[in-house]
Amino acid sequence: MVVKVYGPAYASPKRVLVCLLEKGIEFETVPVDIIKGETQNPDFLNLQPFGCVPVIQDGDYTLFESRAIIRYYSEKYKNQGTDLLGKTIDEKGLVEQWLEVEAHNYHPHIYNLALHILFASALGFEADQKVIEESEQKLAKVLDIYEARLSKSKYLAGDFFSLADLSHLPFTQYLVGAMKKEHLIRDRKHVSAWWDDISNRPSWKKVLQL
Amino acid sequence: MVVKVYGPAYASPKRVLVCLLEKGIEFETVPVDIIKGETQNPDFLNLQPFGCVPVIQDGDYTLFESRAIIRYYSEKYKNQGTDLLGKTIDEKGLVEQWLEVEAHNYHPHIYNLALHILFASALGFEADQKVIEESEQKLAKVLDIYEARLSKSKYLAGDFFSLADLSHLPFTQYLVGAMKKEHLIRDRKHVSAWWDDISNRPSWKKVLQL
Repeated sequence: MVVKVYGPAYASPKRVLVCLLEKGIEFETVPVDIIKGETQNPDFLNLQPFGCVPVIQDGDYTLFESRAIIRYYSEKYKNQGTDLLGKTIDEKGLVEQWLEVEAHNYHPHIYNLALHILFASALGFEADQKVIEESEQKLAKVLDIYEARLSKSKYLAGDFFSLADLSHLPFTQYLVGAMKKEHLIRDRKHVSAWWDDISNRPSWKKVLQL
Repeated sequence: MVVKVYGPAYASPKRVLVCLLEKGIEFETVPVDIIKGETQNPDFLNLQPFGCVPVIQDGDYTLFESRAIIRYYSEKYKNQGTDLLGKTIDEKGLVEQWLEVEAHNYHPHIYNLALHILFASALGFEADQKVIEESEQKLAKVLDIYEARLSKSKYLAGDFFSLADLSHLPFTQYLVGAMKKEHLIRDRKHVSAWWDDISNRPSWKKVLQL
């Protein structure tokens, strides 16, 4: 069964795509245009009542929320492709911990930066310079903690690549690219090496080419 | 090994406590006073570099982020106490989905309400009436989606109590209690029945008595 992924052009669905590529799971993508309001169409809301991407359909199974989807496939195909959950329950606990850190400590600030630097005009509001400055300061503090962590282990959850690292890819790509904030990564030796490592994985390069 | 839980007086650590009670796991609590700045002490930051509660220590294993901790114990003791993850991989996917919905769609609004209605003065800032009104409106919309969902299944992830429901307990308790916003729950028949069900579980009653 080929997995259908809705909204491949956006950052959160790219979490799902890179995970499926790491796991060697076949998929096809279904374009969704948020700006044109397609996530608010009744058919889409039937799949995802909050009107967000991504959603996946896998036969008659539907799932939304990118971090739920990547957990689902990493577990369902535990022994296929890259193991993204760690080898033991204790390792998996640390994967979950850093995946939650990504969601609650890292994402809110990088999301605000992306929203105000990249998408404000397309979404019809004025970028708020104060939000941009505060978000950058907060993200820098989070990255200082990452720097300390990554000076002790190669990846966030330990010496193995996991969902915790993978989940950072889409928005950090915006940060070093279109947002022109690469210094936040490059100013930190271990974060910089970690970013080079994870962003050069064939799976992520393939997502960027899609 | 008795699990040490830091910060039992606060809402997020209560997610961990109710989970440990459901699983029948022995624990002891370690008080932490956020207002006095104890989460910013070097010893605490050594356990939790972001300066937040909860943290657990289980022998020499340390873990933070409440939703990571509850996943860890639900999986580690899968066959002990209440099964909080569903029986199949597909059920677990839906548990993950609704746990993510709680974290990303429900929590931000209820957290803002709690912050501005309950904790602004203790934290030394002025409650913002506009934030309160907007957060309540957004939370109401989320609860409309919950109402539709709960008209089709007894609990969020299906006809079984899971981490997805459990994770709502601490902040919803503030909402119906100290925040005096119980109407948001009671105005919705299925949400109201769901709340009565989950908040009357012996595990949650015990957490409230601690």
